Amino acid sequence: MALMEPISLTEALASFTDHWSPRIVTTVNDYDVRVAKVEGEHLWHTHDHTDEFFLVLSGELHIALRELARERTVVLPKGSVFTVPRGTEHKPYAPVPTEILLLEPTGTSTVGDHHESVPDHVDATTGHALN
Amino acid sequence: MALMEPISLTEALASFTDHWSPRIVTTVNDYDVRVAKVEGEHLWHTHDHTDEFFLVLSGELHIALRELARERTVVLPKGSVFTVPRGTEHKPYAPVPTEILLLEPTGTSTVGDHHESVPDHVDATTGHALN
Repeated sequence: MALMEPISLTEALASFTDHWSPRIVTTVNDYDVRVAKVEGEHLWHTHDHTDEFFLVLSGELHIALRELARERTVVLPKGSVFTVPRGTEHKPYAPVPTEILLLEPTGTSTVGDHHESVPDHVDATTGHALN
Repeated sequence: MALMEPISLTEALASFTDHWSPRIVTTVNDYDVRVAKVEGEHLWHTHDHTDEFFLVLSGELHIALRELARERTVVLPKGSVFTVPRGTEHKPYAPVPTEILLLEPTGTSTVGDHHESVPDHVDATTGHALN
C-alpha cells in the first residue's frame, strides 16, 4: 500500500490548464475534494440529491441561484465559502480567472442531474485524476 | 427560510481566539466544514469510522501518523491538503500559529473514538457554531 503524501493545491492547479474541468485531489470517505480553474460562464444545472460546496482559492466566483421562485446571485471573493443546497438550480460564473475547491460525493457530475445544453467550453465529468 | 450567504474564512477565523476548538462554517449534506486556530500539540487519537480532511489556510501543520506498524510525520505548508484515513492513529502539531479547514461527518469528535488523556488546551468537541 502506498503511503499518502500531502498535496499542494498550487502544484495541483499548475498541472493543468483546462477551464471548468475539475481534478480530484483527494477523497474523504465517499466524497471527492476537487480543484478547478474557471473563467466565464458555466451553465444552469441542478444536483437533485446532494449539496455542493465551493471555496474560492483565487479570483472571484459568482453563483446565480434560483430558489424560492426568485433569482439571486451570491458573490464569493477569494477565501470565502458557500454551499449550494441540493435541488437548487444554480449557475457559476467567474468574471476573472479563478481557482476553486469543490466538495461533493464521488460520482457527482459537474452538470448535475438536470441542466441546459452543455457549451463546448464546459467539461461534463465526474472529475479527472491528477496526473 | 433564511437564504444562505457566503462566509469569509478570514472573518470566521477573526471571530474567535481559542486554539484546537473548531467552528462550523457550513454543512454539506451530513458533513461539517470547520475552521480552527491551532498551535502546539494536539493528542494521539483515532477516528474508527471516518477519514478526516485537512487544508492549511495559514501557517504549517504537522501530522504524526501511526500506520503499517511504524510512525511517520507529514508536513503540510500553507495551501496543502491531506486526508487521514479512518482507523489511523494521528496527532496534529503546529510549530507556529496556524489556521486550518477540516471536513468530517457532522458529530465527529475532535478527539476521535480512542485517544490519550485530553490536555487542558484541547477542546473535546463536535464543533461549535459560528457566533
